[in-house]
Amino acid sequence: MMNDFSFQNTTKVHFGKEALSKLSSEVIKAGHRVLLVYGGSSIKRFGLYDRIISELKKEDIEIFDYDLVKPNPRHTDINIGGRMCRDNQIDAVIGIGGGSAIDSAKAIAALAKADTDNCWDLVTAKKPIIDALPIYAVPTMASTGSEMDASCVISNLETEEKTGFNGPGVRPTCSFEDPTTTYSVPAYQTACGAVDIMSHTMDTKYFSRDDKMDMLYRMMDEHLRTVVKWAPVAVREPENYDARANLMWAAAWALNSFMTCGVRQLPSVHAMEHELSAVYDITHGHGIAVLTPRWMRYILNEETAPQLARMAYEVYDIDRETPVMEAAEKTIECTEKLFFETLGLKSRLSDFNIDDSRFEEMAKNACGKNGVIYGFVHLTPEDVVNIYRMCL
Amino acid sequence: MMNDFSFQNTTKVHFGKEALSKLSSEVIKAGHRVLLVYGGSSIKRFGLYDRIISELKKEDIEIFDYDLVKPNPRHTDINIGGRMCRDNQIDAVIGIGGGSAIDSAKAIAALAKADTDNCWDLVTAKKPIIDALPIYAVPTMASTGSEMDASCVISNLETEEKTGFNGPGVRPTCSFEDPTTTYSVPAYQTACGAVDIMSHTMDTKYFSRDDKMDMLYRMMDEHLRTVVKWAPVAVREPENYDARANLMWAAAWALNSFMTCGVRQLPSVHAMEHELSAVYDITHGHGIAVLTPRWMRYILNEETAPQLARMAYEVYDIDRETPVMEAAEKTIECTEKLFFETLGLKSRLSDFNIDDSRFEEMAKNACGKNGVIYGFVHLTPEDVVNIYRMCL
Repeated sequence: MMNDFSFQNTTKVHFGKEALSKLSSEVIKAGHRVLLVYGGSSIKRFGLYDRIISELKKEDIEIFDYDLVKPNPRHTDINIGGRMCRDNQIDAVIGIGGGSAIDSAKAIAALAKADTDNCWDLVTAKKPIIDALPIYAVPTMASTGSEMDASCVISNLETEEKTGFNGPGVRPTCSFEDPTTTYSVPAYQTACGAVDIMSHTMDTKYFSRDDKMDMLYRMMDEHLRTVVKWAPVAVREPENYDARANLMWAAAWALNSFMTCGVRQLPSVHAMEHELSAVYDITHGHGIAVLTPRWMRYILNEETAPQLARMAYEVYDIDRETPVMEAAEKTIECTEKLFFETLGLKSRLSDFNIDDSRFEEMAKNACGKNGVIYGFVHLTPEDVVNIYRMCL
Repeated sequence: MMNDFSFQNTTKVHFGKEALSKLSSEVIKAGHRVLLVYGGSSIKRFGLYDRIISELKKEDIEIFDYDLVKPNPRHTDINIGGRMCRDNQIDAVIGIGGGSAIDSAKAIAALAKADTDNCWDLVTAKKPIIDALPIYAVPTMASTGSEMDASCVISNLETEEKTGFNGPGVRPTCSFEDPTTTYSVPAYQTACGAVDIMSHTMDTKYFSRDDKMDMLYRMMDEHLRTVVKWAPVAVREPENYDARANLMWAAAWALNSFMTCGVRQLPSVHAMEHELSAVYDITHGHGIAVLTPRWMRYILNEETAPQLARMAYEVYDIDRETPVMEAAEKTIECTEKLFFETLGLKSRLSDFNIDDSRFEEMAKNACGKNGVIYGFVHLTPEDVVNIYRMCL
């Protein structure tokens, strides 16, 4: 019997080539003093920064810059952003960039309204964030779906932890999704983003013990098909609008709670990957790509085969007459081929100069306080070490 | 090139067997004085009314009853409800029932906050409703999707008009969707509801000139497949939870703006049907069922055939090798078979004792001020009369 669920997603999205033209009229609703949260130089190099400044000037919005965003945002950087908000009476925070920028904006917005000046206190409190400055998002990558989602992931380099917090307060008020802003995303980042999108559907929902609602299961099939179809196009033709638009909207809908309805299971591959990027600081989507097919192979058995096989039939167009176990193997092969050949991602941890020296400690952390990842197939630390080893 | 769009849907939904257990904790957020909006006796006969009263008593909520809901709600009845809200300082309105009950609740909630006491003024003003009392919905049918949607349809029997208004103010704050409340829906109403759900996807989106986003187009395929699969089950086995749950969630997602993203076209079949039910007071979904296959046949040509054919391949499992025009014909045949055989709906207007005496006047109204229905294929009043005649 399918589980009961609750669904709500309040984020307003303006989507398309003119999405940014709505920026000032939305942001001014929150106030006149705005913190822009971004990193690196690419948003300046490609003109997006200037575009945003000129849009915000339409409403005489005063702009403050936080340009410290890095991949896997650190709690110490967030603390600086929180202080900037307090010192400058900031009314709203705009995250511009990939998941790291938007997650940084969320964490800063929450910290600005918290009764601590250390962002890690919000992580350890494990309470949903209710109050935060209004958050706006301008995603420039199709990847995490943070732009419609009520959570953020923060890294603590001192403790080598990568975790986060969530709550209605950190769901963006409004996001501005212009697929053309992703034209400049390099093939490598496009590929990593596509893997992350697929994983958001596969890791908790598509492969799960929960009895799935037929309509949502079918929509997951099509969500995965969308990424399988358009990610290779975006890698090959970076200025293909259809490819970029489909990936961008697929990213948002992978993580905005729609397809999760009724799913209570926790993600396995994400739990294992967070240890990889916490310890070795590798790109999240690439870590997911390396782990996913090995995880599939490790958990494949008579009981899990039908769900893996469904992906072969419905997503990879494998003949429906193919026997279940064989079809499940096909899913693994097609996924490897997609990630490591078509999308061109390196397939082994040894390609990152990662060896097995820290696997046991990482596996223990991935399994957390319970000592088990309660996923599609429950994984003990020993299982996790085995899967890490398969990736070497 | 696909159109830009904006998306936002703020309604919170509690879905499942225990959805109603959340009723009092949600409603109390709006206040202590609540108007229940319902009609007929079925909600009392099947115990739902008592269940709701006992839930609301958990928070000592004071209850006022408006039991005037009828199919195709009349503006004069809404005016009575608006007056009840003002006279009793009502804090929130709960619509319990099908689309008519929820639409009545919306119209009453808007009228309670308007500077007129005539609901028809809100229709003729043609302005989005911003301010209204908080609206809660307990749908007891899978049909209109009014429970997540920001519009309502009201009939004026004096002028024989059926139209409505919309705006963020009339989007339900929270809906409580318990599939078991639809177990008692008779086969006829279940069938009419299923047709309405399918039509919400087909009438503006699936069959449209707008360049559709691939992901959404695929999700429409699956949305339609869901109804095609589960509606006959619900008709046969009224207490099949999976069937009722899939239809209920499909109803909400057909009309909650998700699949409409980027679609600007107006509905054709709905425009023609509103005249039928305005003049003859027939059940909306049945009117849609009678009109849809005839409309498909009337507009079928070389240009429209590929979109009709897609439904054959993707929804009705017709062999993909079937030539396009033949597949388009198959779509019409399968739709007729589904509506008039499997779901058992009568297929002709003459079954309702409707003759052609008022077709010209109805066609003129359906085409409105522009004199044309700007749909998938633009329809003149002459076209509309021809389609009505095909239904005799």
